[in-house]
Amino acid sequence: MGRIACANVLSDIYAMGVTHCDNMLMILASSQKFTPKERDVVMPMLIQGFRDCAAEAGTSVNGGQTVVNPWVTVGGTATAVVRAEDVIMPVNAQVGDVLVLTKPLGTQVVGSVQQWFATNQEKADKVRTVASDEDIDLAYRRAMASMSRLNLTPAKLMHKYDAHAATDVTGFGLFGHADNLVKNQHNPVSFVIDSLPIIAKMAAVGQIFPHFKLLQGHSPETSGGLLISLPKNKAEAYIQELEQLEGIPAWIIGHVEAGDRTVKFVEGIRVIEVPETNSVGKLW
Amino acid sequence: MGRIACANVLSDIYAMGVTHCDNMLMILASSQKFTPKERDVVMPMLIQGFRDCAAEAGTSVNGGQTVVNPWVTVGGTATAVVRAEDVIMPVNAQVGDVLVLTKPLGTQVVGSVQQWFATNQEKADKVRTVASDEDIDLAYRRAMASMSRLNLTPAKLMHKYDAHAATDVTGFGLFGHADNLVKNQHNPVSFVIDSLPIIAKMAAVGQIFPHFKLLQGHSPETSGGLLISLPKNKAEAYIQELEQLEGIPAWIIGHVEAGDRTVKFVEGIRVIEVPETNSVGKLW
Repeated sequence: MGRIACANVLSDIYAMGVTHCDNMLMILASSQKFTPKERDVVMPMLIQGFRDCAAEAGTSVNGGQTVVNPWVTVGGTATAVVRAEDVIMPVNAQVGDVLVLTKPLGTQVVGSVQQWFATNQEKADKVRTVASDEDIDLAYRRAMASMSRLNLTPAKLMHKYDAHAATDVTGFGLFGHADNLVKNQHNPVSFVIDSLPIIAKMAAVGQIFPHFKLLQGHSPETSGGLLISLPKNKAEAYIQELEQLEGIPAWIIGHVEAGDRTVKFVEGIRVIEVPETNSVGKLW
Repeated sequence: MGRIACANVLSDIYAMGVTHCDNMLMILASSQKFTPKERDVVMPMLIQGFRDCAAEAGTSVNGGQTVVNPWVTVGGTATAVVRAEDVIMPVNAQVGDVLVLTKPLGTQVVGSVQQWFATNQEKADKVRTVASDEDIDLAYRRAMASMSRLNLTPAKLMHKYDAHAATDVTGFGLFGHADNLVKNQHNPVSFVIDSLPIIAKMAAVGQIFPHFKLLQGHSPETSGGLLISLPKNKAEAYIQELEQLEGIPAWIIGHVEAGDRTVKFVEGIRVIEVPETNSVGKLW
């Protein structure tokens, strides 16, 4: 949880092509319902996870605030002082660009399914009509690995491959963040999205539980990937180098065309299972 | 509430003598127990108060995070990029300095009493043995005014009057923050505190409800004043100019002597009623 929160916070600066962070603050709430022992076990783990992830990003946590709250909470801020030319402002998407996404979707669905398996027999059984217990276990581990992963390397490569604009995908879902991004572009463009990479088996779960609106891009993501507008002739190389460096693919999910600053999901949108087939013991 | 949260956040940079803020973030939680109407009335007021206070401080709120939580929450961060020479590091207290406090104590006591008057007849009646309803009403308005007040002018004057070290007084109470400060000093000094300026009538309430530990300096303060170590021959002028500029006094509450980095409250510590006498219609 601490790692995920830290990766999520840092994504905001990475989406601007800012690849170093000068300082992080951590905000932390312990639960008033914890016993002293629960507090003393859980809270140090949260703090350590956040700190470890900050260290991995080459930065450190130098302040923050700790309170008591009914719910456990962890979050923070990331601050960097940079030269204007080191920032990729999210405004220069060009007609003909393609859209690349650096993490699969479906983290909220995975989280809910995980809860149902612990607390809601009826819903768990419904999930089992489309996914085995092993599938769900793998999906959970994939979601944890994905959410914990920094968007640092994707941000670094944005400079090398001349990215025109980017955002990170979190609480508003893919559609919401794409919509925010397209509305901010200098050129009158639209985003056309034709593919949705989704953590394996979660598309099927999303179809039998349509309230997630996963296939419509409205399911919130936690610490999701970067959505990047790249020149078409550089996108393949961007994806190849990212996979070489991190061992995990990214995907071209659409393109940029002239338009009125809207996001269109094509009819019969293609679902990319991530990875293509589940195999126990192999995460990606 | 929004104003108070913003003033409280900014105090952290003011305590370092940093008098401009480049950017603020606001963190906001709406309560899951709110009706839509309650949310739509309360949350905009919180946001407006925070923004108004930021504007008064010459800065603005350019981001943040909004979530849902059982409790309403408001807070934030303040970031400033400054030259090293513009920072008054909190480490140079000198033997012979005096300690100045820029706001009276007692905000937690006021807040509790206010709640009791609404929800706890028995405790309210006990309060009434030492303070009238008018006293409590005045104390509440004083606390609100004090907590909403920026520590900006006190911070500016720290440079003019050569402050050696400062901290803001918040959740750890006067004693806790003084203790943190004294432990950070380059010189082996101790802080001797002989006077406690307290919002009028709250010392009496603190005496009949000793769990507050108000007279021991352990009662948490919200958006409290700056505790400043100043050269003795400059402190009076500091206080005079602050009162001229803001219409509200500050107080010499102790001094710095050679020691082992501890805080001592003298026996029979003097309570300063703030203001000296209550008079309805006059806040300070």
